[in-house]
Amino acid sequence: MKLKPIGVIYSPFLQATGAPIQPCFAKGAEGRVEVFEEFVPGLKDLVGFERIWLLYWFDRTVFKRSGLLVKPYLDRTRRGVFATRAPARPNPIGLSAVRLRKIRGNTLTICDVDILNGTPLLDIKPYVPQFDSFSVARIGWLEGAIAKRTVADNRFE
Amino acid sequence: MKLKPIGVIYSPFLQATGAPIQPCFAKGAEGRVEVFEEFVPGLKDLVGFERIWLLYWFDRTVFKRSGLLVKPYLDRTRRGVFATRAPARPNPIGLSAVRLRKIRGNTLTICDVDILNGTPLLDIKPYVPQFDSFSVARIGWLEGAIAKRTVADNRFE
Repeated sequence: MKLKPIGVIYSPFLQATGAPIQPCFAKGAEGRVEVFEEFVPGLKDLVGFERIWLLYWFDRTVFKRSGLLVKPYLDRTRRGVFATRAPARPNPIGLSAVRLRKIRGNTLTICDVDILNGTPLLDIKPYVPQFDSFSVARIGWLEGAIAKRTVADNRFE
Repeated sequence: MKLKPIGVIYSPFLQATGAPIQPCFAKGAEGRVEVFEEFVPGLKDLVGFERIWLLYWFDRTVFKRSGLLVKPYLDRTRRGVFATRAPARPNPIGLSAVRLRKIRGNTLTICDVDILNGTPLLDIKPYVPQFDSFSVARIGWLEGAIAKRTVADNRFE
């Protein structure tokens, strides 16, 4: 199972330390996506969507076997990596729902971006509330932990 | 950028034809995830979450260059693949928010599963409304198209 980048994500965040850990903590942060020319036909009709999923490759993280238990940004306790959104994962695929401002040629202007500058893009999907938005009663250890910290440090680099 | 499966997803859907096209059309469909033993420590704390993201490999789809424009299940017009959730994509990564019922050892019992039986699992992330749930004003061509069809056919195989 091999991936190839379909573009590059640009953002104001040159390193993990100080970067927002989720789009909800990145309000107003502007970035752009440059899709490689060969994939541009696939952008047709995308501009009608207010928000899009970006799937990308966490290219500056290191995953070790011991990383199956991690101290996530939002806690001091070691948690199972699959119960966290930590970037260092067995398959380091990132997932962010960012705001789409406009598309000009191969360039998407995006907002609420929590992604490091230069990150390889893997996929774009439209954000569809009927498919993606759910209210849930339980969010495990994150209950009470959200917003304790809103920016990253260098722990996963 | 190479991926390796971390487990396998099992479901009642042996083929695309007749399978629900999204979890919201798969209410009550039960399945399970079997995580390979070496990754089981990463499941710690996951059971506290009501819903989880599964990232998986669309292993029964074929992507051709002409596939940058696709007729999605929900429309008769060709759309840019990145403006659709079609499974045949340059990087065939699937994304479904399923309901988590229980975890026993390496086995997760899940519900609202829209994934084909035997699909390779790539990642699990907790579903967190603060990170993942957004109300949006615009959903492009999908406006009015949702629920015109709720199950798949064989067009991407």
